[in-house]
Amino acid sequence: MYDVARIRADFPILSRQVNGRPLVYLDNGASAQKPACVIEAMTQMYTQDYANVHRGLHTLSNISTERYEAVRGIIARFLGAPSEEEIVFTTGSTEGINLVSYAWAAPRLQPGDEIVLSIMEHHANIVPWHFLRERQGVVLKWVEIEPDGSLPAEKVLEAIGPRTKLVAITQMSNVLGTAVDVKTICAGARERGVPVLVDGSQGAVHAPVDVADLGCDFYAITGHKLYGPSGSGAIYIRRDRMEEMRPFLGGGDMIATVSRDAVTYNSAPVKFEAGTPGIVQQVGLGVALDYLMGLGMQNVAAHEAALRAYAEAKFKGLNWLHIQGNARDKGAIFSMTLDGPAHAHDISTILDKRGVAVRAGTHCAMPLMAHLGLTATARASFGLYNTTEEVDALVSALELCHELLA
Amino acid sequence: MYDVARIRADFPILSRQVNGRPLVYLDNGASAQKPACVIEAMTQMYTQDYANVHRGLHTLSNISTERYEAVRGIIARFLGAPSEEEIVFTTGSTEGINLVSYAWAAPRLQPGDEIVLSIMEHHANIVPWHFLRERQGVVLKWVEIEPDGSLPAEKVLEAIGPRTKLVAITQMSNVLGTAVDVKTICAGARERGVPVLVDGSQGAVHAPVDVADLGCDFYAITGHKLYGPSGSGAIYIRRDRMEEMRPFLGGGDMIATVSRDAVTYNSAPVKFEAGTPGIVQQVGLGVALDYLMGLGMQNVAAHEAALRAYAEAKFKGLNWLHIQGNARDKGAIFSMTLDGPAHAHDISTILDKRGVAVRAGTHCAMPLMAHLGLTATARASFGLYNTTEEVDALVSALELCHELLA
Repeated sequence: MYDVARIRADFPILSRQVNGRPLVYLDNGASAQKPACVIEAMTQMYTQDYANVHRGLHTLSNISTERYEAVRGIIARFLGAPSEEEIVFTTGSTEGINLVSYAWAAPRLQPGDEIVLSIMEHHANIVPWHFLRERQGVVLKWVEIEPDGSLPAEKVLEAIGPRTKLVAITQMSNVLGTAVDVKTICAGARERGVPVLVDGSQGAVHAPVDVADLGCDFYAITGHKLYGPSGSGAIYIRRDRMEEMRPFLGGGDMIATVSRDAVTYNSAPVKFEAGTPGIVQQVGLGVALDYLMGLGMQNVAAHEAALRAYAEAKFKGLNWLHIQGNARDKGAIFSMTLDGPAHAHDISTILDKRGVAVRAGTHCAMPLMAHLGLTATARASFGLYNTTEEVDALVSALELCHELLA
Repeated sequence: MYDVARIRADFPILSRQVNGRPLVYLDNGASAQKPACVIEAMTQMYTQDYANVHRGLHTLSNISTERYEAVRGIIARFLGAPSEEEIVFTTGSTEGINLVSYAWAAPRLQPGDEIVLSIMEHHANIVPWHFLRERQGVVLKWVEIEPDGSLPAEKVLEAIGPRTKLVAITQMSNVLGTAVDVKTICAGARERGVPVLVDGSQGAVHAPVDVADLGCDFYAITGHKLYGPSGSGAIYIRRDRMEEMRPFLGGGDMIATVSRDAVTYNSAPVKFEAGTPGIVQQVGLGVALDYLMGLGMQNVAAHEAALRAYAEAKFKGLNWLHIQGNARDKGAIFSMTLDGPAHAHDISTILDKRGVAVRAGTHCAMPLMAHLGLTATARASFGLYNTTEEVDALVSALELCHELLA
C-alpha cells in the first residue's frame, strides 16, 4: 500500500511553508527534493567516514571506496543493467550525453552523417549534437510529434536513413510528459544497425527502467531528479559500445600508465571517470535509488498516474486553461498557458504567493516551444510525494491567476 | 592567534578513532576533511531551501540561485580575481584543466606546437595534454626538477620556444611539496606571448593566492582539497582567454538560443557551465572558502610551515627514513621511503594500525616517480588542523614500521 503521508514525512523540506502557505512543490521536472535518508547518509560520511577513494590503503579510504563503488551495483540494479561494469559515474545526464558525443560520436561520424532526434528533446540532448554539426558537418534530422504530443515509434524509425549513425531520444518529454516507446525504437534501430541513446532524465524518475529489455546502447540518468544529491548521476553504456569509445576527460584514475611520451588507459568503466569523483553525492544517489526501489517504481508510476487522472479531471472544468500535450502515455507533467495576456512568469509568481512552486519558461526545450508556437509555459511537474490535495491547491491558485490576469 | 585546538573542534571527523587510536589524518593531499559549517550548510539547504537554480521564479528557486551565484563572488575573492565573471564553476581541477584543453587549446594548437610542463605535474595536468599529442600531434616539452626537488622559474622559461603555445604548471607538487615561483614564470611567459595555466589544486590550499598578482591566464582549484565538498571546484580564466574559447559541455544554461539548424551561446562564464550544476556542493565550497578566509590563509601557511619545520627536525633522527624533495619553498608534504624491503603499501597499512592515515602509491604523478626512480612512496600531507603531536604520532608509527619491516 503506497502511503503518501508516510512518504511525505521522509522529506524534511515538504513540511516548510512558502509565503505563509504549506509548500506545494510541483517543480520536480527541474529537480526533486531529497529524503532524510539521503541527506543523513551524506552527513554521516562527512562527519565519520570520509576520505578520497581508490588510491588509499588506510581505513577511511577503504570505507569510502567500498561505499562509493557499491553504488555502481545499485545503479545497475535500478536500471536493469546486466553488469555494473556498464555503469559510468557522471555528474548528470548532461555530462553523460556529452561523454557519448565526444568519446563515441566525434571520432566516428563523418560530414553528412546523420543523427535522428525528436523535436521534444531537452537541450542536454540537442546541444552536444549541434557541436558535431558545427564542428564536423554532422546533420541533425528532426522527428515531429503528433498534435496530441505523442511520438509514434514508426516516425522515428522512418527517419533513419543510410547515413544515420545514431538515434538520440528522450524517454519522457520534460515539457509535455509524453512517454516514448523507446523499446520499439531500439528494436527497429538495431535492425538497421543504428545505436540508440536514451535520455532517461525524466523517464527513469517516473517508471521502472530495464535497459536490457529496452535494448538501448546508452541510457543517461541525472541523480538530482531521482531524489538524489545535486551533481550525481550515471550513464549505462552497453559493453560493446564502451569498447568503441576513446577517453573523454583526462586525469587521475582513468589511466593505467603515464610517461613523458605515452599514456595507456584503464579499463572501462573507470577509463571514463577522471579525477576525484563526486564521492559523497554518488553515495547519496545510491541511498536515493535504494529508497526508490524500496517504494517500488511500479508503485510510484501508479501513484503518479492517479495524480495525472485526478488533475486532468479537475482541469476539464477550467476552459481558460490550456495544457500542452495529452498523449495516452504521459507522465504527470503539465505545461500550461492561460487565455488572455497572462505570461508564464506571472503565473509562476502568483502561484508562488500561494506556496505553489512551478517552473516558467522554455524548459530547456526551445525547438519544441517553437514547434508549439509558444514562447513560454508554466509547468507543474509532479513527483512521488505529491497528493491530490496539492492538485486542488494548484487549481485554486490557477483560478486566482485567471481572476487577476484575464 | 591560530588556535589549532579550537580549529580541530570545527571538524567532526577528527574526533573519531581508527583501530582504537585517535585518527591522525595526514592524507590531506588526496582530500581534506570538512568543517561542521560546510556540512551544516548543505544539510540546511537540502532540508529547507533546495530547488534548481537559474530557471525558476518561485521562492525556493530564487533562494537557491542567490546562494549558488553568491559563491562565484566568494571564489573570486579567495583567488584575487578581478571579476567574478572570470570564475567558471567546475567539479574540480580535472574538469577545469580539461575545459582549457578542449575549449581553448584543441581548436587552436597545430601539429608540432608545444606545451611546456614540469616533470612533477599531477596526471590531471598531464593527460589532457597527452590527448592533444595523440589526437593532433602536439608536442609535450618536459622541464626537469633540481636534485632537491625545486623547479627554478628560469628552467621553465628556457623551455619556451617559438612553437610553445602554453605553459601548464603546478603551483605546488602533490608529491614533493615543492612550491613553484609561478609569478616569475607568468611574467616571463607573458613577455614571450605564451599563456600560463596554473594547477592550483595544492597551491591554493596552503597559502594565499592572488591570480591578478600572479598574472596567470588560467588557475584551477578543487573544492574537496580546500575543505569543501566532493564534486565542487572552479577555474579562474582571464577575460581575454575566455573570449578565445569555444564551448565545451553542451546543454541547458550555456545556450542563448537553440533551434533545429542553429545554436547561439550564452555569455561567459555561463557559456562554460552546462546543465544543472553541483548546486549544493558549490554552496558548501563557498562556506569552506569563507571559513579559510576567516582563518586567514597567511595564518594557515604559517601554521603549516611550523609543522614542516617540526617534522623535518624529528625526521633528522631517523637515518633509515628518506624524504623526497627538500626545496627551500615547500609545503608540509612528505613522500617517504624506508631503507630495506618496506613497500609503501606496507608502511601505509602499518601506520593505519596506529590510526595514522597516509597515502601510498604513485600519487597520480608517474612521470615524477619515474624521474625519482621510485615505484611508490608513502605520503604524509598535512593540513590546517594538524598538530605537532600528530607529527610525533607519525614518527612513532614510522619507528614501528622500521622495526617490523627492516
